[in-house]
Amino acid sequence: MKSPKISEAVVRRLPIYLRYLNELEKNGVTTVSSQELGQRLDLNPAQIRKDLAYFGEFGKKGIGYDVGYLIEKIRNILKLNRIIPVALVGAGNLGRALCNYNAYLRDNMKIVAVFDASPDKIGQQINNLTVQPMEALAARMAELKVRIGIITVPAAEAQQVANQFVEAGVEAILNFAPVIIRVPASVRVHHADFTADLQSLAYYLD
Amino acid sequence: MKSPKISEAVVRRLPIYLRYLNELEKNGVTTVSSQELGQRLDLNPAQIRKDLAYFGEFGKKGIGYDVGYLIEKIRNILKLNRIIPVALVGAGNLGRALCNYNAYLRDNMKIVAVFDASPDKIGQQINNLTVQPMEALAARMAELKVRIGIITVPAAEAQQVANQFVEAGVEAILNFAPVIIRVPASVRVHHADFTADLQSLAYYLD
Repeated sequence: MKSPKISEAVVRRLPIYLRYLNELEKNGVTTVSSQELGQRLDLNPAQIRKDLAYFGEFGKKGIGYDVGYLIEKIRNILKLNRIIPVALVGAGNLGRALCNYNAYLRDNMKIVAVFDASPDKIGQQINNLTVQPMEALAARMAELKVRIGIITVPAAEAQQVANQFVEAGVEAILNFAPVIIRVPASVRVHHADFTADLQSLAYYLD
Repeated sequence: MKSPKISEAVVRRLPIYLRYLNELEKNGVTTVSSQELGQRLDLNPAQIRKDLAYFGEFGKKGIGYDVGYLIEKIRNILKLNRIIPVALVGAGNLGRALCNYNAYLRDNMKIVAVFDASPDKIGQQINNLTVQPMEALAARMAELKVRIGIITVPAAEAQQVANQFVEAGVEAILNFAPVIIRVPASVRVHHADFTADLQSLAYYLD
């Protein structure tokens, strides 16, 4: 399913389609048009049709997309049906907030371990997770077969945490620290940058 | 400067270029090639050249881009030199974490007011900001000329907060609640969705 023709921009839009489709399904809606998707998600309908056409002929002219079928297709494309354990380093405000999102993730993709360097934080409970010391990271991540790491430490500590994640064998990192981290080419990094979100919104102000 | 030809995907990449260029400038680097930018940011160099070409001929063949000049150009395109006051509703873990990012924002674009409905939170200090009651929102936002609103409340409360922001005259909303909010077409909404970030990373796992 992984085709080199699919750009990161498309891959990043698929979860956004998925979120809205899940909401439609919850409300009993069975069919949706690209026009309606576009209106709700502030995207061009032609763009949506083009994105979804990468993966096959899902829609029917004049009828639209079958919601349940499209959900399953997108989940398959993103391979979300696999078990994907996630670890987080940095149990501050942001780290705690992200752990609270666990409730919105399906059972197969969840934060399963939280680490912090600060003696104050080690041993604290965040929902069902106990904050563990950095010394435990490698062993615990191997045990839990963690595949994705989340970084929510201050900028100055982010690279060191990234190095530890790489040594522990993560395949992907979601970095919330406002700094660019360097990792081997085999590890995928996404920067989740709140300031970049705000700056791109500024473009649309009059 | 606002051209209808510029897609949201391009607008969203500009702050990412800006962040790296700022880092280069801080380290005394004066010139950078699209190859180097691409390698650091995990983007295709041709894509970067195409993005920047929307706004004029910034690069020189065989030499690359002048870092300082490009920073100023991107800041102008995003119109970041204006004063852009931002308000936030929801003083939980995520709201507090975002207020801490204020230190990374330039003086002209900052969170200037924080609101919450909970009596426990009203009056609390987050850095230099005092959490204020929702009843104060309209008056305080008018006074501070707030242009962008940030939503960090639970999903069930997000739509109501969006309505209040719209009534108070915001032009753009950054929504962190895991739910799709409805606003008039004149208001721009970006969803900052942590679960979508994780799901798009899953695509790149083997």
